[in-house]
Amino acid sequence: MPDPTTLANSVQTGECRLHELTDIDDVDADTAAAARRLIVEEQADIALDAVSDYGFPAAEATANIENMIGTIDIPIGVAGPVIVNGGALTGKRYLPLATTEGALLASVNRGCTVLSAAGGAVARVMKSGMSRAPVFRVDNVVTAKALVEWVRDNIDSLRDAAEETTNHGELESVTPYAVGRSVYLRFRYDTKDAMGMNMATIATEAACEVVEKETDAELIALSGNLCTDKKPAAINAVEGRGRTVTADVTIPRETVVDRLHTTPSAVAELNTRKNLIGSAKAGSLGFNAHVANVVAAMFIATGQDEAQVVEGANAITTAEVRENDLYMSVSIASLEVGTVGGGTTLPAQAEALDMLGIRGGGTPPGSNADGLAECIATGALAGELSLLSALASRNLSTAHADLGRE
Amino acid sequence: MPDPTTLANSVQTGECRLHELTDIDDVDADTAAAARRLIVEEQADIALDAVSDYGFPAAEATANIENMIGTIDIPIGVAGPVIVNGGALTGKRYLPLATTEGALLASVNRGCTVLSAAGGAVARVMKSGMSRAPVFRVDNVVTAKALVEWVRDNIDSLRDAAEETTNHGELESVTPYAVGRSVYLRFRYDTKDAMGMNMATIATEAACEVVEKETDAELIALSGNLCTDKKPAAINAVEGRGRTVTADVTIPRETVVDRLHTTPSAVAELNTRKNLIGSAKAGSLGFNAHVANVVAAMFIATGQDEAQVVEGANAITTAEVRENDLYMSVSIASLEVGTVGGGTTLPAQAEALDMLGIRGGGTPPGSNADGLAECIATGALAGELSLLSALASRNLSTAHADLGRE
Amino acid sequence: MPDPTTLANSVQTGECRLHELTDIDDVDADTAAAARRLIVEEQADIALDAVSDYGFPAAEATANIENMIGTIDIPIGVAGPVIVNGGALTGKRYLPLATTEGALLASVNRGCTVLSAAGGAVARVMKSGMSRAPVFRVDNVVTAKALVEWVRDNIDSLRDAAEETTNHGELESVTPYAVGRSVYLRFRYDTKDAMGMNMATIATEAACEVVEKETDAELIALSGNLCTDKKPAAINAVEGRGRTVTADVTIPRETVVDRLHTTPSAVAELNTRKNLIGSAKAGSLGFNAHVANVVAAMFIATGQDEAQVVEGANAITTAEVRENDLYMSVSIASLEVGTVGGGTTLPAQAEALDMLGIRGGGTPPGSNADGLAECIATGALAGELSLLSALASRNLSTAHADLGRE
Amino acid sequence: MPDPTTLANSVQTGECRLHELTDIDDVDADTAAAARRLIVEEQADIALDAVSDYGFPAAEATANIENMIGTIDIPIGVAGPVIVNGGALTGKRYLPLATTEGALLASVNRGCTVLSAAGGAVARVMKSGMSRAPVFRVDNVVTAKALVEWVRDNIDSLRDAAEETTNHGELESVTPYAVGRSVYLRFRYDTKDAMGMNMATIATEAACEVVEKETDAELIALSGNLCTDKKPAAINAVEGRGRTVTADVTIPRETVVDRLHTTPSAVAELNTRKNLIGSAKAGSLGFNAHVANVVAAMFIATGQDEAQVVEGANAITTAEVRENDLYMSVSIASLEVGTVGGGTTLPAQAEALDMLGIRGGGTPPGSNADGLAECIATGALAGELSLLSALASRNLSTAHADLGRE
Repeated sequence: MPDPTTLANSVQTGECRLHELTDIDDVDADTAAAARRLIVEEQADIALDAVSDYGFPAAEATANIENMIGTIDIPIGVAGPVIVNGGALTGKRYLPLATTEGALLASVNRGCTVLSAAGGAVARVMKSGMSRAPVFRVDNVVTAKALVEWVRDNIDSLRDAAEETTNHGELESVTPYAVGRSVYLRFRYDTKDAMGMNMATIATEAACEVVEKETDAELIALSGNLCTDKKPAAINAVEGRGRTVTADVTIPRETVVDRLHTTPSAVAELNTRKNLIGSAKAGSLGFNAHVANVVAAMFIATGQDEAQVVEGANAITTAEVRENDLYMSVSIASLEVGTVGGGTTLPAQAEALDMLGIRGGGTPPGSNADGLAECIATGALAGELSLLSALASRNLSTAHADLGRE
Repeated sequence: MPDPTTLANSVQTGECRLHELTDIDDVDADTAAAARRLIVEEQADIALDAVSDYGFPAAEATANIENMIGTIDIPIGVAGPVIVNGGALTGKRYLPLATTEGALLASVNRGCTVLSAAGGAVARVMKSGMSRAPVFRVDNVVTAKALVEWVRDNIDSLRDAAEETTNHGELESVTPYAVGRSVYLRFRYDTKDAMGMNMATIATEAACEVVEKETDAELIALSGNLCTDKKPAAINAVEGRGRTVTADVTIPRETVVDRLHTTPSAVAELNTRKNLIGSAKAGSLGFNAHVANVVAAMFIATGQDEAQVVEGANAITTAEVRENDLYMSVSIASLEVGTVGGGTTLPAQAEALDMLGIRGGGTPPGSNADGLAECIATGALAGELSLLSALASRNLSTAHADLGRE
Repeated sequence: MPDPTTLANSVQTGECRLHELTDIDDVDADTAAAARRLIVEEQADIALDAVSDYGFPAAEATANIENMIGTIDIPIGVAGPVIVNGGALTGKRYLPLATTEGALLASVNRGCTVLSAAGGAVARVMKSGMSRAPVFRVDNVVTAKALVEWVRDNIDSLRDAAEETTNHGELESVTPYAVGRSVYLRFRYDTKDAMGMNMATIATEAACEVVEKETDAELIALSGNLCTDKKPAAINAVEGRGRTVTADVTIPRETVVDRLHTTPSAVAELNTRKNLIGSAKAGSLGFNAHVANVVAAMFIATGQDEAQVVEGANAITTAEVRENDLYMSVSIASLEVGTVGGGTTLPAQAEALDMLGIRGGGTPPGSNADGLAECIATGALAGELSLLSALASRNLSTAHADLGRE
Repeated sequence: MPDPTTLANSVQTGECRLHELTDIDDVDADTAAAARRLIVEEQADIALDAVSDYGFPAAEATANIENMIGTIDIPIGVAGPVIVNGGALTGKRYLPLATTEGALLASVNRGCTVLSAAGGAVARVMKSGMSRAPVFRVDNVVTAKALVEWVRDNIDSLRDAAEETTNHGELESVTPYAVGRSVYLRFRYDTKDAMGMNMATIATEAACEVVEKETDAELIALSGNLCTDKKPAAINAVEGRGRTVTADVTIPRETVVDRLHTTPSAVAELNTRKNLIGSAKAGSLGFNAHVANVVAAMFIATGQDEAQVVEGANAITTAEVRENDLYMSVSIASLEVGTVGGGTTLPAQAEALDMLGIRGGGTPPGSNADGLAECIATGALAGELSLLSALASRNLSTAHADLGRE
């Protein structure tokens, strides 16, 4: 087997390209990674010691990355335990959060303590479905209308084609949108415990072939941005994507006063002026304080697609005084989660899912991903409760000054 | 020194709380982490082997996390080298991307190759500034107007108070927004090489004290959501936050045909129907294909705040045919980056910054963070170029089927 | 019968209130209007001569206004004739536009001439439905989910209750949206030739009674703003409200050059930089140049609800070079129009509908309102074509200087 | 002088075009209008009696319309009197509203009565400025940045060129926005009592000539949609356009109970669930109930540009319980109004301005337009108060059933 230095040389002399290293006979993933590090180290005149210190065979990450050189270690901590009263998952859980931003864990942890003191959060997945929306070009508005009608009339053949590509996925609906002679078909699937973007893409491609074969429409792109994946978009905030999930809680007034050093009415007023009116004035799709912090940290911990934090920020937090107590809720419109595939199979990420008891496929299918959504919504609720209370009692900046940034 | 088992017991008997373990005499951060793992392992009946295998003393992450139990390993790979012709950074660079989503690295790598073949990407930071916007409550519309005028007349005293809290930060402007009797003051700072959220928060708190002392306005929350941090918001997409950065390139027609197997006009049409019209119809603030993928992967690699991927998705991609060649650009409105503080000091993350030659404070101050923004914009341009070309030549799904999800 | 002076006195002495004048025996609507004018004239020390010179008995406007004092005369002109190739309406039409903004008619007229030279505009209603979305309060997330499921299971009884209130309207769907413990049910109706807001409101109220009777949900407001009426809202731009209508045309290159003094590629580039990228950067839901101008002028002319110009501005204009010619389209997402009820029965407004041949109910029902939507879309296309061409050939401001403002 | 029949024939034989009629010697505007009516009447086989019955010489509308055939009569009524405590206008006023939508006047009138009972509305213009944003094309990101910097350095010469075109207008700022190689310069003017769109367009054109002469930038369009005129756009909702105006009031609890048959807390809750949370979920820029109704009706009454109702809908309504009383406010971000030029000089429209005491230029300049903004905000507040109360006491639909549609 060639050693890293030899391999690095072969790249630098142009014999072989960086991503072709693993195609060479007898070169395993770890050796290829070592060779790449040598190349980068020489190019930048640096040492890649920490990056090289990874804890699993590089071959295990073949489906997760190309041109691997090692790993980035993200600190992981736990918040809780918190009582989750979900539709798919119930009981006490330690929530895993991986982050580099000090004060976040402490904040969520404080929120979890108060949630549990109030009996825990109640969480439900209200809606579910992964979407992919190809864009077709037709001749004009007449053919655009004809395509829209054709789709409505031929949903069964589209479903047949789509579902033939998958063991688990089910096509739930196809919604057409037309702009001039561009026609977008938003396919929506039940992808069970998979986040489902890949499944939806493959299934939709098969359906597109039927459209192209049976009509004059020409496929321009398998994704026409009405999906919408990894972009802030009202269509997700309104209609949902992945899981639409809500968590809520009613916290006794005494608990708010004693543990959070504020009052239900102060939190409610702050929520209105900040999360509702402030976000309204900002032209925002996120009417919350920092839901994305929890989504990002739990996504990294559990092997989710970190770029989908974008859609996870489409959340609305409400707070109101209810018979002197504090009612709070967090509704996340488009939380794209899975417990199989993607990063969920990497060793540490799988352990984080184990902490929640939802690694792999659930019984019934989809219930583990539902459970993950419920846990994240609970964590988000804890985070909102804690930060809003802290703001209400004015200690945000102090916490930051002590612990690093928000 | 107490051993982990003893410590775990003390938590489970209620003697001590999870986050108080490190307050106990002689208990170091690693022992505390071990104790927490024991607790979680017992609670969930699992083993946390991978999580426990981290490569640096837990004490080094004290400013990054609380209740630490270990690390999550995110695979990191490199794309490039790519030629970056920036205002702050120039030359060949390997771009570090940490992700669990297969096919991303390969896609960006392909884009980098084509960019370099065309002479590299040109990148510039167009605007810069970190904002924090507290919300005040006043009595009515008359006092709201008075506060707005007071702020305009007293900007110097606000600046003095704000800048006294920081060695590097400079207050650039305070923009008032009023809704009924809620008044939002958007403070905007030059925070040099720091991402600056913490600096801006502390400085703004000092300025708020002046406002409260000199006027009748009452501070409701140090952040009133017009900042806007970690939420999709038009105010960021329009006015910018952090760095507003653009990268562009002109790729000769032959290169597009030979290497990307498509044509400039096909890419331009696809960009218009997908990224412009499709996103328009979706009610989106992100007119791009997958900029968030690159932002997320480079944020994780370089120790940025992963929840700020949300704002990083506020990007517009353009593509046009220009004398037969393909002109493309990616403009990211609100990219919040830093090369000091936060996660940048962790060992692997620091090495990723080393790869780009921009670890720590730059000369002049701010130039390293500018350089990071330019590298991310270049990576985003590579990713857009590659994905749009792939869609245009219809191989998206095939790549996915081979390599995992998008 | 009391004379106006006597009546005016009775109001000023507090015997009677302004809106009670018509309740007095023998007081007809014109006398009451005269009395009100006297009061206003005295209060403001002015003369209301022009306002008083109206051309129909005030009693005819009883359903349109209260506290009437006369009329405001809006100049009306015609553009065209233009060839409309619609799904519901075909042939040459003079388009009626009422406006006070100079240059608008001239601009639309120029566009109509060019459209007709190219064979006319093709127009189609792609989708149709008037919505009303009450908001209910439930106890918590569990009952919110239960309500959502109850609605899905009881759509028939909701339909029965709703349709009992109307002769023409049909309930097409009820889509639930939940945020915390607020649940919004978006009822969508086919209201035929009526704009339908009133019909939808009454029908929805009946359905709400069923919801309140059969579940624990409490109606908070008959409109919960997810309708969305008279506010800019992505839900309308994405999902449509009223008619979703598109008009398109292909204009030969010679026509563009000879009559519009520009080129297809100049118009296409301008459309991309202004209507697509410019609107994207502005955080807009309107990707067009001035569709609202045409919508407003045709709404006023034909007796539509002038406040619904707001939703009529949710339009996307596309322009592309197609085998050297210019293809253009205008897609209006939410155009709320009717040919019966509201202002359509007033004398001049009815004549404007006569000009289009679509006054009153159509055969089949809904076809007249469809035809109106097609005419407005055609007018909007003419306006876009004309203004974009003018901008491309740089004569916008000159036109303004000559004729008044835009 | 040729008679209408002769003129109509000359158009139908192609001798002359519709809009050229007024170019013929001795043909006055009324005769031309009569000729056009003949043509339309014959083409559609109808009679245009009501349209022809207009009350002023057609020549007076020359600056307002082309191809005039007559007028559309919109019923006008009055609401009030209401006490306006503005910064520019104070005292009792009858508010003029022209509409065809029954129940609107009655609703606003009810609100006015309650406002006055509470001492009247307080109103203030918080910000003012009319904007026009041309788009330029530059070579690439480097020249884009250079242009942005050039603008910042040459604001004085841009101001000189712009202000030379106007007697009253003052250039307040030029804000650059760049996307790829498209650069948008948002010019913002103080246009005093004029709405100012035309003034801003002409002044900006002069400034654009300087840009083109002094730099390599090429003007693509005098409006690049970042203005933003007549489209729903976050940039207006956030930064304002025309007048940014707020009106507020505190209504004693007894008044709410006795006259509005509801309670402060019921109104506040309804406002939160409908106007804040409902609009948030709808992806809206309008967080109000029906502000556009009042804006539209007062715009038509006072000769404003009816298409700018679009921006007038960017309004946020707040309601809160304050020491048992009800505090309400309406903040309209972008209300584009003028008291000189445009439709304000037509006879009936001028009388409507007279009713408010603000016809023509004010002393100081700008104060009349400010006063109009304050009156409209007051009317909007009355409308919100009335509708929210009606919804809270559940009589919306009944009112509709009695009086026509909303």
